[in-house]
This record gives sequence, structure tokens and C-alpha cells, in this order.
Amino acid sequence: MDTPPRDVPETPTAEQLVERWSELEEPEARAAAFHELPREESDEFFLMLPAHEQAALLLALPSGERRLWMRLLAPDDAADVLQEVEDEGARAELLGLLGVAARYEVRALLAYEEDAAGGLMSPMFARVRPDSTAEEAVRYLRRQAETDLETVSYGYVLDSEQRLLGVISLRQLIATRGTQKVHELMSTDLVTVREEMDQEEVARVFSQHHLMAIPVVDAEGRMKGIITADDIVDVVEEEATEDIQKLGGMEALDAPYLRTPLLQMVRKRAGWLAALFLGEMLTATAMARYEDEIARAVVLALFVPLIISSGGNSGSQATTLVIRAMALGEVRPVDAWRVLRRELTSGFLLGLVLGTIGFARISVWQALFHTYGEHWLRVAATVSISLVGVVIFGTLAGSLLPFLLRALKFDPASASAPFVATLVDVSGLVIYFTVADLVLRGTML
Amino acid sequence: MDTPPRDVPETPTAEQLVERWSELEEPEARAAAFHELPREESDEFFLMLPAHEQAALLLALPSGERRLWMRLLAPDDAADVLQEVEDEGARAELLGLLGVAARYEVRALLAYEEDAAGGLMSPMFARVRPDSTAEEAVRYLRRQAETDLETVSYGYVLDSEQRLLGVISLRQLIATRGTQKVHELMSTDLVTVREEMDQEEVARVFSQHHLMAIPVVDAEGRMKGIITADDIVDVVEEEATEDIQKLGGMEALDAPYLRTPLLQMVRKRAGWLAALFLGEMLTATAMARYEDEIARAVVLALFVPLIISSGGNSGSQATTLVIRAMALGEVRPVDAWRVLRRELTSGFLLGLVLGTIGFARISVWQALFHTYGEHWLRVAATVSISLVGVVIFGTLAGSLLPFLLRALKFDPASASAPFVATLVDVSGLVIYFTVADLVLRGTML
Repeated sequence: MDTPPRDVPETPTAEQLVERWSELEEPEARAAAFHELPREESDEFFLMLPAHEQAALLLALPSGERRLWMRLLAPDDAADVLQEVEDEGARAELLGLLGVAARYEVRALLAYEEDAAGGLMSPMFARVRPDSTAEEAVRYLRRQAETDLETVSYGYVLDSEQRLLGVISLRQLIATRGTQKVHELMSTDLVTVREEMDQEEVARVFSQHHLMAIPVVDAEGRMKGIITADDIVDVVEEEATEDIQKLGGMEALDAPYLRTPLLQMVRKRAGWLAALFLGEMLTATAMARYEDEIARAVVLALFVPLIISSGGNSGSQATTLVIRAMALGEVRPVDAWRVLRRELTSGFLLGLVLGTIGFARISVWQALFHTYGEHWLRVAATVSISLVGVVIFGTLAGSLLPFLLRALKFDPASASAPFVATLVDVSGLVIYFTVADLVLRGTML
Repeated sequence: MDTPPRDVPETPTAEQLVERWSELEEPEARAAAFHELPREESDEFFLMLPAHEQAALLLALPSGERRLWMRLLAPDDAADVLQEVEDEGARAELLGLLGVAARYEVRALLAYEEDAAGGLMSPMFARVRPDSTAEEAVRYLRRQAETDLETVSYGYVLDSEQRLLGVISLRQLIATRGTQKVHELMSTDLVTVREEMDQEEVARVFSQHHLMAIPVVDAEGRMKGIITADDIVDVVEEEATEDIQKLGGMEALDAPYLRTPLLQMVRKRAGWLAALFLGEMLTATAMARYEDEIARAVVLALFVPLIISSGGNSGSQATTLVIRAMALGEVRPVDAWRVLRRELTSGFLLGLVLGTIGFARISVWQALFHTYGEHWLRVAATVSISLVGVVIFGTLAGSLLPFLLRALKFDPASASAPFVATLVDVSGLVIYFTVADLVLRGTML
């Protein structure tokens, strides 16, 4: 006989709790699970959480416990957490828990736009003076290392006005004779970013130069902080998520899907959905203009969804390609003509493929079931020709709309797949019924 | 009188050439522009190019010049370049240009899947022995620094079987007394990844732990290399691009949009477009079943595009949200029920919004133009009720399809917006005409 396994209370690990975290919905349940972690795991767990989760957890903890956790955070991370706290009072309270120096730095960081280089950087970096010797610099960096700076692998060489002159790696310093001066050893071929640069741009600089850390400077060349590659990983994820959600035809969410309050999410979706619906109403108007044609040849109505969706699908492909290439900096406004030429050819070829399949489908059905009556060949021709036209139009509209939006200073990513599909639906109907008019006049119409 | 500006030949910089690079289409033009760069800029320029551009440039250069550039690359970057060269002969030739040691390492890297941790890592890292003293370790790292290893800011402590025991930072070593042993100082709380781990998973580990470098180990715990955060930035961009392109309803491209040969791109788009077209043909079949209804009440046909596109748009939103949340690990298979509950409510609310707008639109048009005849109220009811149904269906189909695909071991990202739209178009027609049948029977039908 099997004895049931005893319910041994296992001590959970940080990793395990991260796995389970999204299942715990109530703040109290989260606080309780967090308290169950052994002390050394709770540190690690807290630091693994994204900023918005850290903020929510802090607010769920008894206020006496918050100081410990706030002080565990580096200034840039503390600033991120505070940015996630919407209640002004709670934010001020959390800020007050920091030490004086940290509070000062966090306040400075909070003054930056969240999406700017200044809002990403850490103000803690190792400074060295240009006229120190290598030996002095190593000794100095060693002292700074004790206060746990973000990257003491590099010393930033600043003049008396805090202007950045060069950078020197710890490994260069230890690999050299102790009496050489820092300014003779430092590298002056610097890649820097300005404090107000958009984070998407900063990510591009990182990926182009394959750097581990970039110094942030102000307009006068004074060094303000450093951004490290690990922060950029999050930025890139975040920017891609925003673009993907916009491409899906909605406003980007501010938090992960399961964490976004339901009504807030519905609002973000309803806006675009209603706008698209209003645009799509033009199809009803367009269809009404062809009501007589439909009444005379009902067979025409059968292919309406097929025709317009083919335009929408090819438009969705084209707009997705162009928007992503723009976001990566691979396609720039000057490339509009090259894109136009490519998409014209692509659209024509793709239209031919679909037109051929459509023609075959109607011929086969006619042979098997005599579905389309005596004028089936003309019906097939109407559908095929329309498909070529609609796919070319969809492809062009999808690829050029992002350029147009950008020229008008809108976000190109608003040219979402559903937006393009809606645009193409209306014009697709016009193309279809115009072709029908030309091909079928005198026979069916 | 103005004198025309003299045509002073300016020496271009690496940055400028990067800007202009995509405009130069011909390999010869690229090689020529590359040769115009001053020597110190050409180094920088070459290293800034992505791997596929490096490969193309190498092949465009006279073969005598290639050795220099191949040897400039770190082993992991050289492996990436070789992976971009399709011609076997050219690849072997380039590999042969490397030094013996590098060639050996690159060959080992090429044996890994391109998307696995092993294919990303650099095999060059600094090793230290556990029983060295801190002083010996610093001296040893200093020597290794001369051969320019990827990150000599960390020493990896290996036993005699190359198993990873711990890690120690250069800054810890210099901040300590010289006689302490490495194994007393090293940190053993290690985050490592296995060599076969998928790069998307590796990126998640980086972003969760905020690390600058992660050691890669094999099944026996032997250290094989390190992955640094700057490589992960590229991985995250790349994975997001793949997902975005799949969401747009096509196969992911292998190269940037403007660099992909036209016919290859058409092939990647035609496959899905034709598949969607075949699926969409079911709409013609479905419409044919309702041909009699349409003939009796042509007004029904007018709203077909509006109804089915609303289902497609709401499905596109839902599938985009769920696929992205899955890719980020925010939504897992166990969350299917929570997602279902959320989307059921969202779909109902969104359907109500569109249904209300639709009802208002028909009422206003009727009041103004008497477009819809004596039974306009029933027509309006049919459209509104159908909209609620179609939007709920679209939302549910869009959100659950990724779970279904994942359970069937397909890529959830294949549940692209156009795929969901196609699925919903067919069912949308059925919903619409069923509602029409119920509401209009005895009056218009």
C-alpha cells in the first residue's frame, strides 16, 4: 500500500517564485509569498522583478519594511520604480526612504523624460583625473569599488569642469607601468550619447558599436552618467512590444498584458477599433453605390470578402515589413522610391499568383458544379483581374503609408495592419466593381 | 557675385559611410567607397557593419585584402560572418584566412545552431585557478589582457576538468589583500546557461538578472565560453523582427528588407498569401449558401465587409497581445483560462461599442436618406447583434489560437493577424446570416 507523500514544507527559491508570480493576483497573496522566501533569496527575487512589479510589491508590504528594499536599489532602478507609482503621496513617501545622497540623485533622474538617455542612465560611475598616474588611478578605482559602482571596469577621465576627456579600462591600467599618466593612456575615440537622446536611438548606438557601456553627456560635454548594455536589453524589448501592439491595431499598453486593468485595456483597444469601424463604414457606402449591379448579378457579391481580404493581407505584409525596417533604421525616408519600385514588382507578382489560383478555383467549381452560370468565364476574368489590381494596390498602400505618416510627423507604426486593411477594403471594392463593369457590361450587367 | 564652392574632396568618416551604405547597391560601388576611407576609419567602419554586410563586403574585396579583415574579427564574429556566406567554396576560403588557433575556435562555434547559446558565445574568456592568490590572479589576468579577451573584467574560476566553480571580478581582486586565495573570494552564486539553450531564452535570463556577461556551460558543467550583454541587444532585435514579420502574415526574412533579393522576398510572402487565399475561398462557399437570402434582401450584402472586418480587427488585436505576451514569458500555457475570461469580457464590451455605433449609423442614414426601406429597424438590429457576436468570436479566436498552436507544437506567432482575420471572416459570415435569418424571417426573408 502506498502511503500518501508527507506534506514537507519546502523553502521556495527566488526562481520558483518568479515562475509563480503572475498567478498570484492579490497584493496580499504576493506579500505573503514574498515573506516566505529565505532572506538571501528575497534579495535576489526583488532585484529580478521588473520595475512596475517592484513598485506594486513595495506598496503591498507593511510600510516599516519598505526602507530596506528601496535602499537595495541602485539610483537608476529606484527612479524607475518611483515612475511606476501613480499616487503622488506614496511616491513622496518612498522617495523619503532613501538616503540623502541617493534621494538627491534619484530626484535628478526623475527630471528626465522616462524614454530619454538621461532617464536610463546611472549617475554612479568612476571618475579619474587626467594627470593621475596609472598607479594612483588604480588605487583610486579600488577605493571607489568599495561603494559598489555600476561599472568600475572603466574609469572616466574628467577635467575640472566635469567634461569628459577620455576613458580608460581597469585592465589597461593594470597592464601598464605605474608611472604613466592617465591622459597618455586613455582612449579619446569616444562614443557618447546626449542626455536627451531617445532610448530607441541609444539602443541603435549600442548595437552598431557593440559596446558594454556608453557615457551620457550634456550639451556642454559634461558627463552625467553611464548607460550599460544590460539596461538596453530591456529598452529593446519594450520598444518592440510597443511597435507590435501598434501594428496589431491598438494603443500600446503601459504594463504587461495580464497586469493591465481590464477596463484600461478595453479603452486602449476600443479607440482604434471604433476608428477603424468608422472608416470601414465607407464600404457600406461603396457597396450601396453598386447595389443595382449586385441585384442583377448576385454572383458578384460572393467574391467580395475574398477580394478585399486579399488586398488587406498583402497590405499587412508590406506595412509590417516597412515599419519594422524603419524602426531598425534599415529603411529611411530617402528610400521611399526604392521601396516603391520593389513593392510594385512584388505586388504584381503576388497578384498574379492569387489571380491564377482564383481563376483555377472558379473554373474547377464551374466544371464540377456549374455554380456560376453561362458567363462563368467572364466572372473568372473579373475576379482574377481584380485580384491583381487589389493586391498591387494593397502592397503599395501598405508600404507607402508609413512614409506618408512619417512625413506628416505621425508615428509610422500607426499604419497598422488593420488600418491598411480598412483603407484597402474600400478601394478594393471600387476596383472590383469597376473591373466587373468593364468585363460584364452587356452580358450580366 | 558668388563664386561656386570649390569641390574639396572631403575624407569621409566611418559614421558617414554607414549612413550612405544602404544607398550603394552594387558590390563594386561598396568596395570603392570602403577603399576611400582613411585606414583608421575603415577598421571602425568594418566592425560597425552587421555580419551579413561584412560577409558581402569581404566577398566584394579583392581576395588579397580579405585576410586582414577576417583576422580583425573576434572568433564569435568571424563565425557569424561565415554563417552568412552561402557559397561553400567561398566560406572555406575565408575560414582558411584565419590563424590556426582562431580557425579551430571558429570551426567549433560553427558546429552550434546559429540560434543557440553556443552559437552566440565567445570562446575567449579569462581563466583563473581556485588556489591562486589574488595577487597571482591579477598578474595572470594582466597577461591575458594583452591578448585582448572579450571581458577581462571577470576571471572565471575553473577546476582541472574545466568545470566552472565561481567567478571573480577584477575589481574584487584589486580591492583585496594580495595573499587571499581566489576560492575564498570568488562568488559561487552563478547564473549560467547551457550551450544548447535557445537565444530567446538566453535573452530572458539576461533581462531577468541584469547581467553584463553570462558563462556558457555544457551538460557536465564545463565552461565553453561567455555571452556578453551587447550581443544580446542584437538577439532581442532579431527575435522581435522575426515575430513582427510572422505577425504580419509572412515568413520571416533572413536579411534586412532592402538587402533581401526581390524574388526570395516574394516567395516568403507568396506562401502565406496563397494559403490565406485558399482559406478565404471558404467565404465564397459560405456566401454561395446564402445567395438566395442576398437575392431577396440585397441590403444584407452591403454590410458584409463591415461585419467581417470588425471581427478581423478585434481578432488582430487579441492575437497580437497574446503572442507578444507569450514571447516575453508574461503569459504561459497555464494562463489560458485567465486569458479566456479577460478576452470574453473585453470582446463583449468592444462588441457593444461597435454594435452601438453601427445601430446609430443605420438610424441616421435612414432618417436622412431612407436608404434601408421600411424594415430598417430590423436591419439595424441584425447588424448590431451580429457585430457583438462577431467581435466576441474574433477576440476569442485571436487570443486562444496562439495557445492552441503552442499545444500542437507549432510556433504561436504563426497565428498572425491575417490568419486570424481569415478564420474570423468565414465564421463572421455564418454568424451574420444566421442572425439575419432569425431577425428578418417573415419580413424581408
